[in-house]
Amino acid sequence: MKPSDRSAAEGILFTDEYQLTMAQLYYRMGLHERLAQFDHFFRSYPDYGSHQAGYCINAGLEWLLDWMKGARFRHQDVEYLRGQMGRTGRRIFDDDFLAWLRENGTFDGVTMRAIPEGRVVHPNVPLTVVQGPLAMAQILETSLLNHLNYPTLIATKAARIHESGRGRLLLEFGLRRAQERGANAGARAALIGGADFTSNVGVSHVLGYPPKGTHAHSMVQVFMALGQDELDAFRAYADVYPDDCLLLVDTIDTLESGVPNAIRVFEELRRAGHRPVGIRLDSGDLAYLSIRAAKMLDEAGFPEASIVLSNQLDELVIWQIITQIEKEAPRYGVDPDRLIGRLVYGVGTRLITSQGASALDGVYKLVAVQDGGAWAPAIKLSETPEKTINPGDKHVWRVYDRRGKATADLLGLDDEDPHEMEHILLHHPTEYTTYRTLARDEVSEIEPLLVDVVREGELLYDLPSIEDMRERRHADVERLDSGVKRLINPHIYHVSLTERLWDLKQELIEAVKGDS
Amino acid sequence: MKPSDRSAAEGILFTDEYQLTMAQLYYRMGLHERLAQFDHFFRSYPDYGSHQAGYCINAGLEWLLDWMKGARFRHQDVEYLRGQMGRTGRRIFDDDFLAWLRENGTFDGVTMRAIPEGRVVHPNVPLTVVQGPLAMAQILETSLLNHLNYPTLIATKAARIHESGRGRLLLEFGLRRAQERGANAGARAALIGGADFTSNVGVSHVLGYPPKGTHAHSMVQVFMALGQDELDAFRAYADVYPDDCLLLVDTIDTLESGVPNAIRVFEELRRAGHRPVGIRLDSGDLAYLSIRAAKMLDEAGFPEASIVLSNQLDELVIWQIITQIEKEAPRYGVDPDRLIGRLVYGVGTRLITSQGASALDGVYKLVAVQDGGAWAPAIKLSETPEKTINPGDKHVWRVYDRRGKATADLLGLDDEDPHEMEHILLHHPTEYTTYRTLARDEVSEIEPLLVDVVREGELLYDLPSIEDMRERRHADVERLDSGVKRLINPHIYHVSLTERLWDLKQELIEAVKGDS
Repeated sequence: MKPSDRSAAEGILFTDEYQLTMAQLYYRMGLHERLAQFDHFFRSYPDYGSHQAGYCINAGLEWLLDWMKGARFRHQDVEYLRGQMGRTGRRIFDDDFLAWLRENGTFDGVTMRAIPEGRVVHPNVPLTVVQGPLAMAQILETSLLNHLNYPTLIATKAARIHESGRGRLLLEFGLRRAQERGANAGARAALIGGADFTSNVGVSHVLGYPPKGTHAHSMVQVFMALGQDELDAFRAYADVYPDDCLLLVDTIDTLESGVPNAIRVFEELRRAGHRPVGIRLDSGDLAYLSIRAAKMLDEAGFPEASIVLSNQLDELVIWQIITQIEKEAPRYGVDPDRLIGRLVYGVGTRLITSQGASALDGVYKLVAVQDGGAWAPAIKLSETPEKTINPGDKHVWRVYDRRGKATADLLGLDDEDPHEMEHILLHHPTEYTTYRTLARDEVSEIEPLLVDVVREGELLYDLPSIEDMRERRHADVERLDSGVKRLINPHIYHVSLTERLWDLKQELIEAVKGDS
Repeated sequence: MKPSDRSAAEGILFTDEYQLTMAQLYYRMGLHERLAQFDHFFRSYPDYGSHQAGYCINAGLEWLLDWMKGARFRHQDVEYLRGQMGRTGRRIFDDDFLAWLRENGTFDGVTMRAIPEGRVVHPNVPLTVVQGPLAMAQILETSLLNHLNYPTLIATKAARIHESGRGRLLLEFGLRRAQERGANAGARAALIGGADFTSNVGVSHVLGYPPKGTHAHSMVQVFMALGQDELDAFRAYADVYPDDCLLLVDTIDTLESGVPNAIRVFEELRRAGHRPVGIRLDSGDLAYLSIRAAKMLDEAGFPEASIVLSNQLDELVIWQIITQIEKEAPRYGVDPDRLIGRLVYGVGTRLITSQGASALDGVYKLVAVQDGGAWAPAIKLSETPEKTINPGDKHVWRVYDRRGKATADLLGLDDEDPHEMEHILLHHPTEYTTYRTLARDEVSEIEPLLVDVVREGELLYDLPSIEDMRERRHADVERLDSGVKRLINPHIYHVSLTERLWDLKQELIEAVKGDS
C-alpha cells in the first residue's frame, strides 16, 4: 500500500460498509445518539482438529484503545463517502448524516468495561462491554472484533505451546508467514500468551523486548558458494558474536557435519574464554537428533549448551518430541530430564497463524438499548439455542472452589451480587434442567472480571505492561484444573447464569416467539 | 499500537533479528556488497485437510514494492540497534556497521524479476528473483515473504471459492476475523483471486472498488428492543435505501418471519416504483432455506431478487449447497439452475484466514553469489530431497499443449531457450528416472513467466490494475486442465527442469556430499 493510503485504509474506514449504512438509518430514525450496549464475546474455544483448547487468553485491548483514540471521520473520509453511489446512481450517504459524522464521528462518547489482557477467558462471557451512542457503537463493531479476535487466538495458542514445552524458553519466529502487518499484533499476543521473545525486530523495539534470533542456512551457503565450507562459516559467526554464538547445524548433515563443526568452534571459543550459547536443529527427526546432539555436546564438555528446535512446531509436536525423548534418551545414555531442560523452542507458522483453528469466532451483539431513561434488554434468537445471546447489562464473576481453583464463570444481572447469596446457583446457559449449586463455604473467592476501562472516551484504566499481563496469565493458568488444560479433549469449564439472568432470557425468548 | 510507534514497527525493522546479525557478519567479512541472488518460491500447494489446491494465484507484489521504496535505516532505527546488548552486556552491532546501514541501508541496489500478480503459479517455481548486495538482499527476506506469502494464500482461496460458486457474485466479508491490519492485504488478494467486492470500506476506497454490505441482526434487534418488530425494521431500511434494499431475514425465524416480512416490504417498494435487491440468509440449512425462500419470492413476483448466503462458507460448503439444491429444488417446484444463478456468496472467516491451510510455505533461498565477475551457484541440501533447492540464475517458461492448455512450467538455465529446442525434455526435479519429452509440434506456445520489475531500485514495470490482474487470473485458470482445478485431490501439474539444470543440480549435490 502507498504510505499516503494508510490513513484512509487504517483509520475510521477500517470497518464494514454495513456499519455505515446502519448508522445512517439510525440517524434517519433519530436513534443515532440513543445509548446502546453491546457485548463482545466468543462462542467456542479454538478447535485445532486433532486437539482443542479448554481456555483462552484474552489479548488485544491496548492496541484497540490506541486505534479508537485516533479514529475519526476526517474531511477526506467524509468526502469519500459522499462519492459512494448506490445501484441506481443515487448517492448512498446524504449530506446531513455526513455532516453529523464529520462533527460527531469519534469514539469520545463510548464507555467500555473489559476483562484485562492476559487473563484466562471462556466462551459466552462478555470480554468487552461497550456502551455508547448507537451509531458510533455500531460502527465500532468491525474494528473492535478485528483488534481482539486475532490476538486472543494467538495468545491462546502461545499459552498452549508454552504449557506443552513445560515452560522452557519459547521464541516467536512467525513474521514471514503472518498476515502482513498483522504479524506485529500476533507477536505481541504471543508474548502475552507465553512466548518469551520474538524474532520480530520492530515490534520488539516498540514493546521494549530484546529481539532474538540465530542465523539462516543462507549464511553457510554463501561460504560454500565462495569455495569455503560450513566450518569457515561457523568460525566467522563465532568471531563476530563470540558471546552469543548459536549455530544452525543442518545445512549439510546434522550429525556428520553440523554438530561436529559446531563443537570444534565451541572448543575454540572456550579456549578464548567465551561460553557458546548452543545449536539449532531445523529439520529431520528433532527428538532423535536432539538426543544425539546432546550426547555429542556432553562428551565435548558443553552440557550447558542449549538446543534450539524449530521446523513446524506446535503444542502437539512438542509434546510428541518430549515423549519420545523421555522414552529413547536413556538408550543413548542421555538423561531425558536434563535434555528436556536444555531445549528451546522456535515456533513460527503454527503459532502466528494458529494452525488448525485460524480464527476465533468472537462476536459483538446488541444486548440493551436505552428507552425513556431505562434500559430495554435486547435478544436475538437463533436456529441453534447455543447462539441465542444473554441479554441485558451483566456482571461477570469468577468463582473459585475451596482449593483456590477456578470452578465457574458466572454471569448475572447488574444489580446482583453473589457475595450476598447463601447458595450460588450456577445455571447452564441453555439447558433448563442443568444446574449446580455451590454453598457459600465451598467457595474460597468470588472475583469480578470486568474492569472499567473508558468512560465517555476518557481512559480510566492503568494499562498494564506486557510483563504484568504475562504474570496475570501465568497465575490464571495455575488456577485452572489440570483437566481444563489438557491439550486434547479438555474438560469443559462451566460458564453459568444466575437464576435471575436465566429467567430474563427465557422471558425475552417467549416474548419474541409469541410475537412472531 | 501508538501511531508514533508505527514507523518503527512497520519500516525497515519489520524483519527478523537474524537478518541483521547476518548482515553484520557479511559486513565484517567484506561480503556485504557482494552481489547475491535469492529465489522466492513456495514448496507445496495449500492442503486444507479435506480438500487440496492444485494451483495458486500469485499476489502481493505491488504492496511489497511500496514497502521497499520507503524502507530505510533512519537515524532512530540505527540508534535502537546501537542499544541492543548481547548476553554478556556487549553491544551486538558495532558503529562501523551501523554507519554503513545508515548510509547504505536501502533497497536501491536491488534488482527484481517476478511473475505478475493474478497469474496461476505452482510449487518450486521462482515467483520472485532478487539480485542485490548480499547484506540488503538478506535483510529483505523476511518482509518479502511476509508481503507475498499471505496474499498468494488468500488469492488462491478466493479463486477456489469463485470456481466452486460457478463464477456467481462473491463478496469478501472477513475484516472482523482477519489478522488485524493484515485484513487489508487479504481483501486486496481476495479481489485479485476471485472476490468481486469486499465489505472493507477503507481498502475499497484505496483500490477504487465500491464496498458492499447488507445490514446486521443488531438493526432488527434495536427495533425489537424499542417495542417495534422486524417488519418495522425492514420498512425503515427500505425507506432509507429504496434502491439498494437487501434484507437479512434470520433474526427471528427465516421462513415464518423474515422472508414473509421481506416480501411485504418488497411489495411496498414495488408499488413505489423501486426494485428490491434481495435477501440474505445467515444461519440454518442454507440450501433448504434458499429453495424455500426462492419459491416464496417467485410466488410473490420477485424472481430477480438475489439470495445472499453467508455463515462459514468456503469452497466445499458452497459445492455441497449447490449439489443439494440441484437434487432437492425440483421437489419444491423450483428450477435449480435459476436458483443457483441468483445466489450471491458472502464469505468471511474461511476466506480471509484460508481456513484449513492458514499459511503458504513460501521461502527465499540463496541460489548464487558473484565470485570474481562470475556467478557461483549455491546449493542447500536437506534431509528430504524435495527440499533441496534448484541452484543458479534461472528462467521460467510455461509450456502449452496443442489444445492451448498449460501442460508444464519449465525451469532452465539463464542461457537456455526452449524455443530453440527440437524436443523439450521435462525432467522431474528430484527423481532421476522420471521425465517426459514434448516434440516441438506438440507445443502451441512457450511463455516466459518472469518479468523485469526493478533494476537497481528503479521500477521498470507498468503496475497492472486490480482489474487487469483479475482478467489475468481468469485467463490463466481457463487454461488449466480441469483435473488440476478439482477441489479435492487435484491432478498434479508438472513443474520440470531442463536437462542442463538437472545436471548442474546433481553436480553441486555431489560436490557438497563429497566434501562433507
